[in-house]
Amino acid sequence: MESKNLVIIGLKGLPKIKKGDNIAKLVVDLIKSSKTTLESKDILVIAQSIVSKSIGRIRDLSEITPSGEAIELYQQIKAKAEKLGIPVKSPELIQAILDESKKIIKVEHVLIVETKNHGFICANAGIDQSNVEGQNIVTLLPEKPDHEAQKIRNELKELTNLEIAVIISDSFGRPFRIGSTGVAIGIAGMNPILDQRGFKDLYGYTLQTTIIGHADNLVSAAQIVMGESNEGIPVVIIRGYDYEIEENASIVPILREPNLDLFRSEE
Amino acid sequence: MESKNLVIIGLKGLPKIKKGDNIAKLVVDLIKSSKTTLESKDILVIAQSIVSKSIGRIRDLSEITPSGEAIELYQQIKAKAEKLGIPVKSPELIQAILDESKKIIKVEHVLIVETKNHGFICANAGIDQSNVEGQNIVTLLPEKPDHEAQKIRNELKELTNLEIAVIISDSFGRPFRIGSTGVAIGIAGMNPILDQRGFKDLYGYTLQTTIIGHADNLVSAAQIVMGESNEGIPVVIIRGYDYEIEENASIVPILREPNLDLFRSEE
Repeated sequence: MESKNLVIIGLKGLPKIKKGDNIAKLVVDLIKSSKTTLESKDILVIAQSIVSKSIGRIRDLSEITPSGEAIELYQQIKAKAEKLGIPVKSPELIQAILDESKKIIKVEHVLIVETKNHGFICANAGIDQSNVEGQNIVTLLPEKPDHEAQKIRNELKELTNLEIAVIISDSFGRPFRIGSTGVAIGIAGMNPILDQRGFKDLYGYTLQTTIIGHADNLVSAAQIVMGESNEGIPVVIIRGYDYEIEENASIVPILREPNLDLFRSEE
Repeated sequence: MESKNLVIIGLKGLPKIKKGDNIAKLVVDLIKSSKTTLESKDILVIAQSIVSKSIGRIRDLSEITPSGEAIELYQQIKAKAEKLGIPVKSPELIQAILDESKKIIKVEHVLIVETKNHGFICANAGIDQSNVEGQNIVTLLPEKPDHEAQKIRNELKELTNLEIAVIISDSFGRPFRIGSTGVAIGIAGMNPILDQRGFKDLYGYTLQTTIIGHADNLVSAAQIVMGESNEGIPVVIIRGYDYEIEENASIVPILREPNLDLFRSEE
């Protein structure tokens, strides 16, 4: 029997990341001091939280003065959250979310928005209160995640002379199904989608509509190892996936255009 | 450096599956004749297509007479699909979709429905025309995917005396983002969601809302190896994920209740 293997390596032992840290260098140093190696065409999946910390995309909620809109939204959200027994966010957090948003998509026990900088549809504009030091400190999504991914890819190439694709990862909730799953928010070195229209299936028939969100599948795979609580594994190497190298990659092709989206019913 | 590894092994060489085939036995025979092993707490991800074929959940579109409703829906879908330059389904396929559906959620260039047997929200009721023999033959989702997963898990236990979790996999499109990603449609031996509310994060703070859709993440990981065209890898072993064994697992906990779903705006 032939078999085709993929290996997912979670890197433990990275120091806690702070503003100004060079993630590529820290990863390469960590790998050098270990039995793990980095190989050409490995994919490095890096948690948004450490990328945001390295570039200072954090905010102190205690320094925010909520606007009238934020306070009003807070009241609506609080009422809905309390009915479900879900912890209630603060007006300061709502303000931080509004500051990162282009458009409010749904007001429920969370705020579903379209992010200002990227056009992602997600809860709370991707603002995260977990895995960041300080009770009032939150991480914001990087303003230009593709740029951060490309920067790390370039630095890795300089340091190791290897061809490494880089994906910045997050986990989003989704409609219809409970539980967060992996999402790519920035990418370098590979296209986020794999268009198989025109390929043949196992019986020789031509695939009509198959487009695979392979960057999100890769992040989901990484997140099995990363976890979301105290695992301390913000960087994962994926080895064995034969992707095509794409020099000018961007996360944009994975975002549906609003007019083609079946589920956007903006309020 | 400590590292935490996950290995994903795609099994090649399984015969083309037909009605009555025992998938557990075929997998065990294949593994016995190879250098791969099966280990306790491995997770077996099995493509829906072969499970459906093994239990005869296929339909011949040429034997279907579309109802008036199917013909009318076909006209609507055809008009929308043609605008987007997307291939148009037949009235017979629309009828097959209606026969598998409880409710139509959206009529677009595809039909988004809630499936009759499970309550999944997906395009075309999960009916698939690829990777099945015969131009007019489609596979339908298993009526009871949890039952099929449990049956395979039990048979594997009998054949190998090992504790193997089984996930039946499919790939669904999703709102907001382009490209299909992995979805679990049936499960045995583990819970499809991982509830981490109350867990501590890396900085000692308690997670408030973290629920992970780990079954879908596992399927997404498997699909990187499976692919969707002519890879011929319908079974994947995932090794190294430390899950809790759950004897009475079901896919139901991963489905949002309609009244808690932020994105159900039924037509």
